Amino acid sequence: MPFALSGTRVPSASVTDSGAEREKETVAYHEAGHALVAESRPHADRVSKISIIPRGVAALGYTQQLPTEDRYLLKKTELLDRLDVFLGGRVAEELVFGDISTGARDDLQRATDLARHMITQYGMSEHLGLGTFEEPRTSPFLNIPMAQGPREYSERTAQAIDEEIGKLLADAHQRVTGTLTDRRVSLDALAKLLLEKEVVDRTTLDRLLAPTHAE
Amino acid sequence: MPFALSGTRVPSASVTDSGAEREKETVAYHEAGHALVAESRPHADRVSKISIIPRGVAALGYTQQLPTEDRYLLKKTELLDRLDVFLGGRVAEELVFGDISTGARDDLQRATDLARHMITQYGMSEHLGLGTFEEPRTSPFLNIPMAQGPREYSERTAQAIDEEIGKLLADAHQRVTGTLTDRRVSLDALAKLLLEKEVVDRTTLDRLLAPTHAE
Amino acid sequence: MPFALSGTRVPSASVTDSGAEREKETVAYHEAGHALVAESRPHADRVSKISIIPRGVAALGYTQQLPTEDRYLLKKTELLDRLDVFLGGRVAEELVFGDISTGARDDLQRATDLARHMITQYGMSEHLGLGTFEEPRTSPFLNIPMAQGPREYSERTAQAIDEEIGKLLADAHQRVTGTLTDRRVSLDALAKLLLEKEVVDRTTLDRLLAPTHAE
Amino acid sequence: MPFALSGTRVPSASVTDSGAEREKETVAYHEAGHALVAESRPHADRVSKISIIPRGVAALGYTQQLPTEDRYLLKKTELLDRLDVFLGGRVAEELVFGDISTGARDDLQRATDLARHMITQYGMSEHLGLGTFEEPRTSPFLNIPMAQGPREYSERTAQAIDEEIGKLLADAHQRVTGTLTDRRVSLDALAKLLLEKEVVDRTTLDRLLAPTHAE
Amino acid sequence: MPFALSGTRVPSASVTDSGAEREKETVAYHEAGHALVAESRPHADRVSKISIIPRGVAALGYTQQLPTEDRYLLKKTELLDRLDVFLGGRVAEELVFGDISTGARDDLQRATDLARHMITQYGMSEHLGLGTFEEPRTSPFLNIPMAQGPREYSERTAQAIDEEIGKLLADAHQRVTGTLTDRRVSLDALAKLLLEKEVVDRTTLDRLLAPTHAE
Amino acid sequence: MPFALSGTRVPSASVTDSGAEREKETVAYHEAGHALVAESRPHADRVSKISIIPRGVAALGYTQQLPTEDRYLLKKTELLDRLDVFLGGRVAEELVFGDISTGARDDLQRATDLARHMITQYGMSEHLGLGTFEEPRTSPFLNIPMAQGPREYSERTAQAIDEEIGKLLADAHQRVTGTLTDRRVSLDALAKLLLEKEVVDRTTLDRLLAPTHAE
Repeated sequence: MPFALSGTRVPSASVTDSGAEREKETVAYHEAGHALVAESRPHADRVSKISIIPRGVAALGYTQQLPTEDRYLLKKTELLDRLDVFLGGRVAEELVFGDISTGARDDLQRATDLARHMITQYGMSEHLGLGTFEEPRTSPFLNIPMAQGPREYSERTAQAIDEEIGKLLADAHQRVTGTLTDRRVSLDALAKLLLEKEVVDRTTLDRLLAPTHAE
Repeated sequence: MPFALSGTRVPSASVTDSGAEREKETVAYHEAGHALVAESRPHADRVSKISIIPRGVAALGYTQQLPTEDRYLLKKTELLDRLDVFLGGRVAEELVFGDISTGARDDLQRATDLARHMITQYGMSEHLGLGTFEEPRTSPFLNIPMAQGPREYSERTAQAIDEEIGKLLADAHQRVTGTLTDRRVSLDALAKLLLEKEVVDRTTLDRLLAPTHAE
Repeated sequence: MPFALSGTRVPSASVTDSGAEREKETVAYHEAGHALVAESRPHADRVSKISIIPRGVAALGYTQQLPTEDRYLLKKTELLDRLDVFLGGRVAEELVFGDISTGARDDLQRATDLARHMITQYGMSEHLGLGTFEEPRTSPFLNIPMAQGPREYSERTAQAIDEEIGKLLADAHQRVTGTLTDRRVSLDALAKLLLEKEVVDRTTLDRLLAPTHAE
Repeated sequence: MPFALSGTRVPSASVTDSGAEREKETVAYHEAGHALVAESRPHADRVSKISIIPRGVAALGYTQQLPTEDRYLLKKTELLDRLDVFLGGRVAEELVFGDISTGARDDLQRATDLARHMITQYGMSEHLGLGTFEEPRTSPFLNIPMAQGPREYSERTAQAIDEEIGKLLADAHQRVTGTLTDRRVSLDALAKLLLEKEVVDRTTLDRLLAPTHAE
Repeated sequence: MPFALSGTRVPSASVTDSGAEREKETVAYHEAGHALVAESRPHADRVSKISIIPRGVAALGYTQQLPTEDRYLLKKTELLDRLDVFLGGRVAEELVFGDISTGARDDLQRATDLARHMITQYGMSEHLGLGTFEEPRTSPFLNIPMAQGPREYSERTAQAIDEEIGKLLADAHQRVTGTLTDRRVSLDALAKLLLEKEVVDRTTLDRLLAPTHAE
Repeated sequence: MPFALSGTRVPSASVTDSGAEREKETVAYHEAGHALVAESRPHADRVSKISIIPRGVAALGYTQQLPTEDRYLLKKTELLDRLDVFLGGRVAEELVFGDISTGARDDLQRATDLARHMITQYGMSEHLGLGTFEEPRTSPFLNIPMAQGPREYSERTAQAIDEEIGKLLADAHQRVTGTLTDRRVSLDALAKLLLEKEVVDRTTLDRLLAPTHAE
């Protein structure tokens, strides 16, 4: 691992020549961010494999997590760790490139949906309380949104929901920024390995992360 | 009953090894919470059976209450006791684990619906008064939500309804927290019994609760 | 008529044993409340029969009023008396049991609809003035609510309509509470007769109410 | 014409015995009110016939106005006179009976529609200005309201429209109250004649109104 | 041209006898107003023909403008001149009769639509900026409005759009009032000629307007 | 290049005679604006061809940009440069003619859509944060907007989105105005060349822009 800084921005993208190379580097850091946050959270599923081999337009890279057993219930602490993992890719881009890409769209949508569920379905927001709030419904026959009546709850409640979602995401962003700033050496190492090998399995990940425990 | 504390949190989950075991313990405390609140309320139906044998994804456990006779009318005092029983599982999780799970979703939805009905259909909110307020309508032909016109009532009324639902639920939460804190010994005993036997019937419940009347 | 108090609450429900008996008593007082208010209002139709024989789930009891002749126009004074009769059952429950039941739902819906019509269709609210305000529309083909466009009037008007409905109902509640408090002796007597006979006709009602004119 | 007062309320309804008689008297004064306002306005069409012979539920009475010629354009002054004629029946009820009936519903709806058109389609409100504002649309195939998108204009504009409609109607109400108070002798005479004859034609109306020019 | 005043109201309508004559005079002044404003604006198309021969209910009169060549782009200055021409008929009615008619409805709708487009589609409002704002959409299959989702933009933006439309129309109204007040002699002359001939072509218009250049 | 000013307005439109000529000049400057901004931005695709040969009503002219390679991810800096290119045509019209045309409609719609996506789908607005906000949905079967339920987010969020879109566009407008003011000589030269040749290819563009590097 040649570079040892943490917390400063390495404009590594500037030394690659082609747009395709820059794109691959972005994807590598993005996936490394997801993986490293997952490894840093006690309640997140362990990473089994990371890949930056493109699989069609929908996924330029992916980080696979294997749950250790079947689960039916999820605790609030587990859901918060999931939020962090969703944001790991985006925060890695911010830290490394000082620029952000359209590649985080799916992560952000899933993080927003999770935060909304925590607040509106699981009573996990102290501000909103124990009540549940209706979700957009979908027809059972067609995979399209249904025409619906007016919103069941008031504008003020809608505003409180928006604020709570924003707060959950902002808190997660801050936690993840802390984690990846602290573990920047591992982040760079993992991204570099991904750029070389394109696929990193659990064994390789364990070996790579072992010496960095001193961080 | 080996432990005698009440009001402090026993991190019992920390001594179980697997996630499945932890999940089972959560379910046991959740159902024990429902059952104990039902037994503590004069206008709630008596508990006939408690089980933590999973019945598909929809219900990991259940607490069966047998109404003693057919009923057509329900009094406000009875509805308030029902609210308390709905929240018993969630509050048990809070008190015992210091964490909450997704398992309370159905309870929270039913509690919210009941609170909404009390306010909008039965004139049981002093703040909202005797008027009724339309509910979301469903097509008689398809089990899907209907396209509807604009909300019949004003945003200010919608806000008042949201506030009253929140207040009904917050009051119930406070009452139930008091009950389960006071009866923590019974709660632990009942959850322990459920973890051992998986099913507790009325006779066993009576025997278990008998010595705790001194609480 | 053994008890002579008025304005204090007789916890008569406490002496009945079964829930079915308590329910029957609730229904008897509820119908007696409707009937007594109808008899106390100059512009209400006279009561022809009161019954607490259950007729399916929809009606546990009923109070039948016979209009003395065909009518096409209704005066505001007549509509106000109708509001009072709708609330008679609910107020009787409040006064006698200190608790309220779900049994008033239909009465409250009809009272709300009537109050809304007075305000939005008949120009009978000084605050809202002479304008009419569109009502929810129903398809002529299916008995289901129609998809509709945006509400014709402003949120501020919607708020004023809600306030006026609330005021009409609150005023009626106050008038009816006054009437039934004043005529508590008759109310108890009529409810007792209903519990004994289950059906009270006009002749019996006249006999029962005759001696109470001194109230 | 036996009674000569104006501006005080004659409780003439109190001397009739049956509800049908009272209803007929209400209709007679209602139609007389329409007719007398029409005769008092320079830009209203002349009355050709007044009748209180019921024509089904929809119209207990009617006042027929014959336009003197075909018209394609209407001036604002003419529309204001139409508003006054619409309110003539309602104001007559107020003045004579001190009570109002459901019989004015159609008049109020038509007056509201006219006022709305003046403001939203014809640019006749100084406050709203020259812009037009969309109206509720109806399907060309079915005589039912269409599902529509969101309201084209803002809530603040909706509020201004509501206020202007209210002001147009309140101003008309004041003008008509003035007219019918001034012409109370004619109003009583015309209503009395209608109660006797049930139909009054133009010639009879001319004769009846002739001597009252001195008012 | 017998009358030479400008800026005072000639109650010319008062000397005509029948309503049809008054209506014809209104139409003549209305069309003369359109034509004179079109002739006064550098970026408006020239008038080729004016007619007050009724063509069914939809158009009692018309002013025909011939574009001098095919155009695909329109400049803001041209659109503002179009607004002025749309309002020419209405302002002529105001100035001449001191009353306004329902005949301006189409003009006002077209002016409102044009103003809305300038603001929401062409970025021509400094206050609203360069963003575009969705318009009501129509089904491609049926000529009916589509059911739509919620409005894309906020209530505050809707309010700003309403205000800007109002401002564009109020400014145009002021400009047109200035123009027709200044050219009142020509307006009276053109209206008089239209009442005599019913159709005025370009040549006649040129002749009529020539001597008034001194205005 | 005969004229050397920059920043002042050349009323070149005033010397052309016909409207078609003026329209062609507008299109030439509009396309030259797009092209010059694209050439001035490091992250925009290079211009391959500019043409003012009309291709039907939809496009009077066009500027073709060729991406140098396939791209799946776009960085925020690239999206900002795209915004600038979209506004290049409109700003050129403003600077050169002191008037604006309807020709920028498509550019403004695409710029608005892009800005909205940056804010609501890609988490690129600091003010709105990382949450995603639902977009208007379209049926998968018909290319028409779907009837939808109420907006998922609050009015306050809708307002914040509107403000952020407005800010992104206003900032871009300011940047582009700076660029085209600085490069006015090249803008005039390119527009003049387009008016002469109607099509300008990459080679010609390179030659034309080369000497102006001194700007």
